[in-house]
Formats: sequence, structure tokens, C-alpha cells
Amino acid sequence: MRSRHGRRVAIVGLGLIGGSLARALKAAGWRVVGHDRGPVLRAALRARAIDEAAASVDEAVADVDVIVLAASPTTNRRFLPLAARAAPPRAVLTDVGSVKRAICAEARRRSLTRFVGGHPMAGRETSGFAASTPDLFRGRRWILTPDRGTNPAALRRLRGLVRDVGARPIVMAPGEHDRVVAFLSHVPQLLAWALLEAARSDRVTSRRLDVAGPAFRDMTRLAKSPRPLWREILAENRGEVRAALAALRRAMRRPV
Amino acid sequence: MRSRHGRRVAIVGLGLIGGSLARALKAAGWRVVGHDRGPVLRAALRARAIDEAAASVDEAVADVDVIVLAASPTTNRRFLPLAARAAPPRAVLTDVGSVKRAICAEARRRSLTRFVGGHPMAGRETSGFAASTPDLFRGRRWILTPDRGTNPAALRRLRGLVRDVGARPIVMAPGEHDRVVAFLSHVPQLLAWALLEAARSDRVTSRRLDVAGPAFRDMTRLAKSPRPLWREILAENRGEVRAALAALRRAMRRPV
Repeated sequence: MRSRHGRRVAIVGLGLIGGSLARALKAAGWRVVGHDRGPVLRAALRARAIDEAAASVDEAVADVDVIVLAASPTTNRRFLPLAARAAPPRAVLTDVGSVKRAICAEARRRSLTRFVGGHPMAGRETSGFAASTPDLFRGRRWILTPDRGTNPAALRRLRGLVRDVGARPIVMAPGEHDRVVAFLSHVPQLLAWALLEAARSDRVTSRRLDVAGPAFRDMTRLAKSPRPLWREILAENRGEVRAALAALRRAMRRPV
Repeated sequence: MRSRHGRRVAIVGLGLIGGSLARALKAAGWRVVGHDRGPVLRAALRARAIDEAAASVDEAVADVDVIVLAASPTTNRRFLPLAARAAPPRAVLTDVGSVKRAICAEARRRSLTRFVGGHPMAGRETSGFAASTPDLFRGRRWILTPDRGTNPAALRRLRGLVRDVGARPIVMAPGEHDRVVAFLSHVPQLLAWALLEAARSDRVTSRRLDVAGPAFRDMTRLAKSPRPLWREILAENRGEVRAALAALRRAMRRPV
């Protein structure tokens, strides 16, 4: 059944972000078609996080108004041309990946003016559909990264989708986004791992981790984040992450 | 008025930790004598966080069962011999500072066998009496650092005080404590400052700090901690902090 108001969405990838988005859009009255591996699809149907399960990307996007690529960065880039080819002309496309330059360049190369990169600033250390929740985006910033070629109507519709899940859209260029998240997200992720690893590597401290106060726990919370996904993110944003790490090292050398 | 059950305490320094301890011990039925500068004392009396205000360390400790030094590390070390000299023979002494080797060595040098170093793992980025709260220690670890010379009865009584405020006492040697907190508290504090400073130092990111997600905010929460106090802490624990930073740098070089 097709919504009369252009509120039919395909979500490709139903992990923490895709699953939460499905739940949030359903709650906001959207009709949601989901695609993921079989067991995830079945779980999403059971949880009523999606209205329809699609067995392929082609099937998922065949009759929707918005397509959200919510797999890993590399997979999103691979799915982008497939989704664009199979989608109806009215559909706009976006993704929710943590790096924007690469996928936006891919869209530009293919003259996909109805694609706008996106990134909800609503991560979590948990992952997978089981961790998804409809209020993940409430009150959070959601970065949208159009470039010169982007169709303004596509951007407008994605702003609407972002607001529908309670998030606050903010527009940046893809390169600006990648630089900012290197400081605000990617380096913090590396620090969480390094801090926990350093404490565990010390033979005295490793036996006393249970005395850590709330600050240490807050600062290493992200260490539970999925490493394979993060390897992709860090590889895609290597240059900006290196520059941010250099800035961090300079800051560490300054007196307190 | 003297409690019959040995539950009269002097708290020297009524900042976040001392003030919270005063409130928590009052709530647990202790009689609390406080000492600090005049305006803080008056605020503590008004808030009923203390029963009596003492104009000097001598006056504060004159007739109590337990003395808690809750000023900065350097001030606590300076007050230790004064408090011990003015205190009744029955009184046991402790402190709540973030570094234990220096003050415990001072106590040993003076043969103060009724002193036991202490450190509640319950910090916060706020500071001062205004930030104090009676439940700061609830469920937290409270490290006690006796050494070979310590009177076992003094340790026993301090364990009781720690339990009275809802914390869980744990015993370590002073040197072990200093090594563990370098990893679990002092390096995290330095990272919080450096991470925020790095983001602020980048001309693009500094204009976009408002898009930070919850992880960045958690990881830089400590950046509000008072720098003068931390300068003392880091100087007192310089050696262990350097070693922990070296371990962190090694951990940062490892692949994700």
C-alpha cells in the first residue's frame, strides 16, 4: 500500500541505527520497508519495527519515496548505484554513515542529484538490531551534507524525515563533516579503546579495574563499539583522523 | 556534646568531597565539626551540613573520634602534623586526597600510626561546597591505604566510617593506589582536557562543537574540573602519570 503523502521509506541495513530509524519512522506514521539478512529481517518484523521485509535491495526500493542506506560505509557505497537504479524517479536517497566525503563523491560521479549524505550524531556503544530503540535520535543533531549538485527538493524532504524522528537537521559540506567528526567522534573512539587497553596492559591496574569511578567508565564506554565497523570508518576518514590525533598530541603537551 | 559511640568527626575542608562527606555522615547520625574559610563554614552551617563550625584546625579536632583532611593534597600534608598534635589520643586520622604515597610517607616519618590514607573513587567535574551532596559516595569504592606501621584499630574504624556513607572500602598499599589511579583517574582527566582543547583549537571544528553526540560530552565532562587542584594532584603523582601516559601512547599505536 502506497502512502499518499510521500511517506514510504526503504531502510537498507537494520542494525542499531537502521533499526532505530525504522522504529522511529513507524512511530511517526511512515510505512517502512526493511532489507537486511534473513534473521535480522525476521526479528524486525516480529518487533513491528518494519511493515514489510524485502529480500533484496531492488525489491526494497521499488516503490518508496525515501531510501536510507544504513549498512557499513563500504556497503552503503556499493549499494548506492544499485538502489538508485532500482528506485522510482520520485525517490530521494540518503545514508547514515560516519564518513561523508567518499559516498558523496560517489554520488556526484554518478550524477545522483537526489542523494544527500546524512549522519545522525546519536551513536552508542551497543550495536545490532537488538539494541535499536525509537528514541535514539530525539534531540540529537543530524548532519546532512548536500553539495553544489544536490537537488534542493531532496534536501528539503530529508530535513522533514530527520524532524519526524525528533532530531535537529544541520547542513555541512561533506569535507567539513569529516573533519568535525574526526575530532568529535573518531578520535574519542580511539581514545576509549586506548585508555581501556592501557589500564588492562598494566599488571597492577589490570587487577583493580573495579575501583574505577564514573569518569573512567564514561570515558571507556565506547570501547564496546564494534571493531569491524570502526575499521571501515577509520580507514575512510584516515586523513582527518590523523590530523585530529596530531592536534590531540599537541594539546597533551600543553601544561595543565 | 560528645557522642557516646565514638561518632564525632572533624572535617577539614568542605569542598565537593568534604562537604558531601559532612552531609553523608550527618545523615548517618554522626556529629560533624567543620573547618574551612568563613564563607564556606557559614554556608555549611546554613545547609545543616555540619553541626559546629571551628575557626581553626586545632579547635576542629580538639574533641573528636575521627579527623578527615579534605583540603588539597599539599594542604592536607601541611595540616596532618597540626591536626595530630591537637587531636585527643583516641582520634584516628585520614584524608581524601587523590595521591597517597606522599601523605602516607609523611605520616610514617612522624610515626602517626593512627593515620590511614583514604581516597573515595567518587569524583565529579563540579567542585566546591555548593556542589556537595550526601549521596556522592553511595555504591562507590573508597580506597584505604594502610602500611606496615598502621594501627589495625584505626583501619577498622575508618572502614566503619566508609560504610556509614554507603561506600565500599578496599585496601591497597599507597604505591599501588597511586599507580592504579594514574590509569583510572589522572590520565582520563588529562585526556578530557586535551580532547576538548584539540576540538577547540581546530578552526573548523571549534565552530561546530554543538553537533557533538553524547560520547564526546561524556569524554570531556571532566574538563570542568578545577585546574589548581589538579596541578597539585598531577605534580604529586608525576612518576606514575608519566608511566601511564607512555602505556596510553603504546595502546594508541596498536591497530584497531
